[in-house]
Amino acid sequence: MRKRPGYGSLLIVGGHEDKEGEKVILRAFVKKVGKAGKVVIATLASQEPKIMFEEYETALRSLGLRHVHHLSIESREEAMSDSRRRVLDGADAVYFTGGDQLKITSQIGDTPIYTRVCEIFEAGGLIAGSSAGASVMSETMMVGGEQESTYKIESLLKLAPGLGLVPGVIIDQHFSQRGRINRLIGAIAQNPRMLGVGLDEDCGIMLQRGRFQVVGSNAVHVLDGSRVTFSNLTEAEPETSLCIYGVRLHVLNQSDTFDLKTRRPRYNPERVVRQWVGLPPEKE
Amino acid sequence: MRKRPGYGSLLIVGGHEDKEGEKVILRAFVKKVGKAGKVVIATLASQEPKIMFEEYETALRSLGLRHVHHLSIESREEAMSDSRRRVLDGADAVYFTGGDQLKITSQIGDTPIYTRVCEIFEAGGLIAGSSAGASVMSETMMVGGEQESTYKIESLLKLAPGLGLVPGVIIDQHFSQRGRINRLIGAIAQNPRMLGVGLDEDCGIMLQRGRFQVVGSNAVHVLDGSRVTFSNLTEAEPETSLCIYGVRLHVLNQSDTFDLKTRRPRYNPERVVRQWVGLPPEKE
Repeated sequence: MRKRPGYGSLLIVGGHEDKEGEKVILRAFVKKVGKAGKVVIATLASQEPKIMFEEYETALRSLGLRHVHHLSIESREEAMSDSRRRVLDGADAVYFTGGDQLKITSQIGDTPIYTRVCEIFEAGGLIAGSSAGASVMSETMMVGGEQESTYKIESLLKLAPGLGLVPGVIIDQHFSQRGRINRLIGAIAQNPRMLGVGLDEDCGIMLQRGRFQVVGSNAVHVLDGSRVTFSNLTEAEPETSLCIYGVRLHVLNQSDTFDLKTRRPRYNPERVVRQWVGLPPEKE
Repeated sequence: MRKRPGYGSLLIVGGHEDKEGEKVILRAFVKKVGKAGKVVIATLASQEPKIMFEEYETALRSLGLRHVHHLSIESREEAMSDSRRRVLDGADAVYFTGGDQLKITSQIGDTPIYTRVCEIFEAGGLIAGSSAGASVMSETMMVGGEQESTYKIESLLKLAPGLGLVPGVIIDQHFSQRGRINRLIGAIAQNPRMLGVGLDEDCGIMLQRGRFQVVGSNAVHVLDGSRVTFSNLTEAEPETSLCIYGVRLHVLNQSDTFDLKTRRPRYNPERVVRQWVGLPPEKE
């Protein structure tokens, strides 16, 4: 991996990335790291870390990746130990798998492990995360239970601090599959400075230098609250439905890019990413 | 009911309107028609028209409505008959209940029943519809199966002509409850002239003279495609995800109003509708 200090990349995935078919997302990961790169799979969020690791290991090795290591932590105490941290030595990329996002932040927040992850990122490495591993990328992350129906003001509190690798963005995953648009609108209503990024399953974004590109088979929803003209957030009773006017919504496809500063999407044909990861222009 | 010819009203409801608690939506219906008005419950969409009728009849009579009639049609032949049409004579309001929207349009489209419904509306009457009864109000209605995940281009074809009482609007119901935002985005992508209105359960809009007000406990989502800058609708393969940039999204609460011409929402405290229908300002 040719690393440029200060220009780390993030691969943020909505969960259930394809591990048996064309594996576009994992191909993008391998393409970015390089087949000789050192990769650490961090299964901190998972209830079954060993099975999870093996799934990723098999898929990544099938794409030619040679150095795949496992970071598993059972407690915060372990996260403090030198021995655990050492698996990250010389790593080019870390992949946070799914599960419970609070298990990641509560175990490694403010520990040597977290510091090392930041160092890898700042040295120009790649930090990837899927599902719970995607949520933790942001400064503030969603932790609430499912919100399948109308959004009530009281629900807005189900947030927790994330790892803070992407400032100004709040991420939600399994987005279309679990009908989560209302809870993401609820989150950006609190502070329209935050851009809402909703990632579908088997879909992700590759983010570098304030710009991301969509990778995968489904869609990315971007919710931009910067032109919101009204919300009842502070005026209403907790059981009242959230009301908000003027949210801008973009639905992006594979290869489309988005500039976080100008908040503008840009179209690219799907084949752009396919060709970059070494697949034929169209699916057979 | 004081009727003004040319200024009929529509009450369009997302399904499962409360029939046992505060019944805000049914109260708004009765308030508009007046307790002495003649109301016809049209159970055309339903598999169990008798049970459906009795449910509405009980709820509406409990609110003081005296003249509640039943219109049930089993076939298009029946819709052609004079006897069926006569139940609509002198009616001030018609309430289309839920079920299958195609049963409504295929049975009464271009029949004397349909003509009479339009006459009641044009004479200043009130036409209400819930769930399937809501969908048929528009020129073009959704009929497709559930779309719980990412929207694919090919899904866009699941539309059918409605009764056409609301021009320029496409309605979806059970909106947040069934995670239907993607399919409504898909519909407006086809023609941004159409405004997308997504009604949650126990939530509806009272529409008159190009302006509607929200009634009920949940939210109404308005999707405005007039500022859309790009969509891949015509360029992509059927199995590609829909991509669209710059949809404006408003989430409205009870009492909020929306002007269909200017496409602007306006906030009102929830108590405005509560007081109009004779309820105390706040729920106890």
